Amino acid sequence: MEDTRQTGNLALTRVEQVMQVLRERIAARALAAGARVPSIRMMSEQIGVSKSTVVEAYERLVAEGALIARRGSGFFVAAHALPGGRGEFGAYGAFAARGPMGAMGAMGATGPRLDREIDPLWLTRQSLETDARALRPGCGWLPASWLPQDAVRRALRAIARDPHAQLTDYASPLGLPALRQQLAWRLAQHGVEAAPEQIVLTDGGSQALDILCRFLLEPGDTVVVDDPCYFNFQALLRVHRVKVVSVPYTPTGPDLAAFERVLAEHRPRLYVTNSAIHNPTGATLAPTVAHRLLKLAEEHNLLIVEDDIFADFETHPAPRLAAFDGLARVVAIGSFSKTMTAAARCGYIAARTDWIEPLVDLKLSVSFGNGELAADLVQRLLVDGTYRRYLDGLRAKLADAMGETLRRLACAGVTAWTRPQAGMLLWAQLPDGLDAALVAREALAHGVVLAPGNVFSVSRGAGSFLRFNVSQCNRPKVYETLQRAMERAVEAKAQPA
Amino acid sequence: MEDTRQTGNLALTRVEQVMQVLRERIAARALAAGARVPSIRMMSEQIGVSKSTVVEAYERLVAEGALIARRGSGFFVAAHALPGGRGEFGAYGAFAARGPMGAMGAMGATGPRLDREIDPLWLTRQSLETDARALRPGCGWLPASWLPQDAVRRALRAIARDPHAQLTDYASPLGLPALRQQLAWRLAQHGVEAAPEQIVLTDGGSQALDILCRFLLEPGDTVVVDDPCYFNFQALLRVHRVKVVSVPYTPTGPDLAAFERVLAEHRPRLYVTNSAIHNPTGATLAPTVAHRLLKLAEEHNLLIVEDDIFADFETHPAPRLAAFDGLARVVAIGSFSKTMTAAARCGYIAARTDWIEPLVDLKLSVSFGNGELAADLVQRLLVDGTYRRYLDGLRAKLADAMGETLRRLACAGVTAWTRPQAGMLLWAQLPDGLDAALVAREALAHGVVLAPGNVFSVSRGAGSFLRFNVSQCNRPKVYETLQRAMERAVEAKAQPA
Repeated sequence: MEDTRQTGNLALTRVEQVMQVLRERIAARALAAGARVPSIRMMSEQIGVSKSTVVEAYERLVAEGALIARRGSGFFVAAHALPGGRGEFGAYGAFAARGPMGAMGAMGATGPRLDREIDPLWLTRQSLETDARALRPGCGWLPASWLPQDAVRRALRAIARDPHAQLTDYASPLGLPALRQQLAWRLAQHGVEAAPEQIVLTDGGSQALDILCRFLLEPGDTVVVDDPCYFNFQALLRVHRVKVVSVPYTPTGPDLAAFERVLAEHRPRLYVTNSAIHNPTGATLAPTVAHRLLKLAEEHNLLIVEDDIFADFETHPAPRLAAFDGLARVVAIGSFSKTMTAAARCGYIAARTDWIEPLVDLKLSVSFGNGELAADLVQRLLVDGTYRRYLDGLRAKLADAMGETLRRLACAGVTAWTRPQAGMLLWAQLPDGLDAALVAREALAHGVVLAPGNVFSVSRGAGSFLRFNVSQCNRPKVYETLQRAMERAVEAKAQPA
Repeated sequence: MEDTRQTGNLALTRVEQVMQVLRERIAARALAAGARVPSIRMMSEQIGVSKSTVVEAYERLVAEGALIARRGSGFFVAAHALPGGRGEFGAYGAFAARGPMGAMGAMGATGPRLDREIDPLWLTRQSLETDARALRPGCGWLPASWLPQDAVRRALRAIARDPHAQLTDYASPLGLPALRQQLAWRLAQHGVEAAPEQIVLTDGGSQALDILCRFLLEPGDTVVVDDPCYFNFQALLRVHRVKVVSVPYTPTGPDLAAFERVLAEHRPRLYVTNSAIHNPTGATLAPTVAHRLLKLAEEHNLLIVEDDIFADFETHPAPRLAAFDGLARVVAIGSFSKTMTAAARCGYIAARTDWIEPLVDLKLSVSFGNGELAADLVQRLLVDGTYRRYLDGLRAKLADAMGETLRRLACAGVTAWTRPQAGMLLWAQLPDGLDAALVAREALAHGVVLAPGNVFSVSRGAGSFLRFNVSQCNRPKVYETLQRAMERAVEAKAQPA
């Protein structure tokens, strides 16, 4: 490590500037507890100071307890530093400092993790980890009882019985041809023309986006997302070390004036969004917005990944960017995790022909191919009429639940931002600018997982919003707990800090 | 793009230097056809020239047809450039230039792809894509008929019958507790002490390594692999933009003197290797080598990922680095794709306690968790005595096949590098320095997929070696085709170029 004692006064000021930048990012949760801080080189380039200045700033933040140095590995954001908590791991103690509570959470303990910062992964963890008895109006999927369990069971039996079922081999590079054919037909129903040879199967929608990010992005590139957007877009993009900028979402799509400004100012390479039904708002893109958006994308050479994960919730087909664009600069991805099963991971990428070969190479390099059993299961469910009939019933059930949830939230003084045409998601605002994070923490302590708005917001401008999943809202306890948590938030607001 | 016409003579020489660097990387397959060339900035930093110099060098390589520029996206290595082949994709034609043959291969056509360069992905594609009637003595897995099809079938039926089976939900963050408990016991049998809370399930062994690379590496870091090593280590590490250096492998483990030199010279951060049975050589690490290797790792603060994918092939337990080290600087990964099923993707990471939390965050960010159905299937097979009995039979069958293959290869003049104690892999050398790539191409044209040595060799020093899979070698056609291909290679050698 460089000796920085010679650093003069001017440099010292710069050191303090770097420290301030880091402190702000940590305060804004752009760097969560445990996160790796940008490398010396990257930071030096990012803010245009010398490497030795960055080194000194990092070292001072370590001395302050804000960062932890892992020898040979870099610097990490400290959490509730408990020095010596796991002394035996000396040189590698970066994450040990989270203390016993954090560690327990990771280990699958059933208690809610009240201490965890509300970052994009907060909701994932709360939804997946919390005690089975907890209620989850904030989680992003259907209750198991709403999913086609019997159809999945039947398909598994059919696979087990089928003497030709492929039970043990690796999948072919693109994945099961019969499923790709099915997907081509389904995409065509939304106006997206993709031959089966343009479809690559993946182990779920997240992997589809991950592979595309690897293909399309370099560290330091800029990516646009909606504000608010699906929280895991943020978590995934962070892994790719790209800069994320956001554009306000309106009930008919992204705010085009803001979008144009972002294009001009940040020259982003990629826009990642949901089609059909937007997460978290439940909004639907208007055709005129889609058309103008694509025009902007062409003018600024912007690529688009359109995540169509909620396709099968739709009652009336919404416009798809991929359909307007003909898969030239738009890539469509999707999965069956929301409407069929998330236990068998199966997603897809539909992309222009000339991208398929390198995408498949990437997929094989990082995963050696998708799971054929999951693909076979999905394929059997798609050709089986029971899935179609199940969807008809599901849509009706969701429409009822949407109406009921809207009514009950209105009674609680919580205002829907828009009335979604379909799906399970509802974006709603607490009264009097109440802090949704506070309300969510309070509710979590009483066994109810809510989804605070800023988990979805890059600008963190959704502090009084919550996302509700109407399929998980049919218990009085949800509203009782919400009401009580809101009262506590009102009290907290009345008290001087 | 910057105007580079002002560039003087000195800079021109530098331009030529950059062009030369690129040409060499392409010639050495460090940059394969279709691969993205380092960004202007990265290249400029890597070789210490200005960005405008790099721009000019790239533009000139485009003019030469060696690179293709994709507007706003960067530069890519051209293949067999067929200009105008897919003119409709104008601005994005980077990969279109591969021509119809390449495109057909990607689209799952059944013909062998004789045109594809022999890079680390060559074997993957050949093994996965080629006509089902082809013989695959070079592929890295067992024939379906050798795998426990009936046991998988029974487990699927059991899941379908089980009223408590989890058929539709996402997995918990670490993955199915019952399987992690099983894995803890199994690791303990190899002396690796890992609590179930230290085990993270993944969708296969490649994903396990991919997540670890994301956690442990930054672009530009250096990673050591064995020479030869599992070819997909190279493909995967390439995705992570790290520098790969290799150390010669001996029949008892890596060459320690060479290892020490590499540590001193390149200061690598990570070593990725196989334990138990080495891929491709079939060799087994000696305890003394393991001990000295770990000492070197400690001295140079090197981390190690030990891929234990062949664990269940073992007849006598070999030393595990993770056991000696106690999961301090060694991470153990594995999967059941080789001995149970690759159709249900299921692997694991066993790591030190304080790494689990950030590893799980990463896993959730990029995949939203592993598939529970695959985990359940593997778990049921592990507790079912049939898997243990199947393994006993498999090991005996492999021992027979190993003996038979050794005998038949010896008759053909092909020499085993070492006699593996167990497993399916055999590393063998062609006589008279014959070119294994030539032999493999010739055999492929006759429907036999061989595995040429340099696919496994970073130094490309294994040009006369082939890897055989003894479970795929029990057909006379394998040896007939090999013999004929060798004769053709002899003829080619005799002819003047």
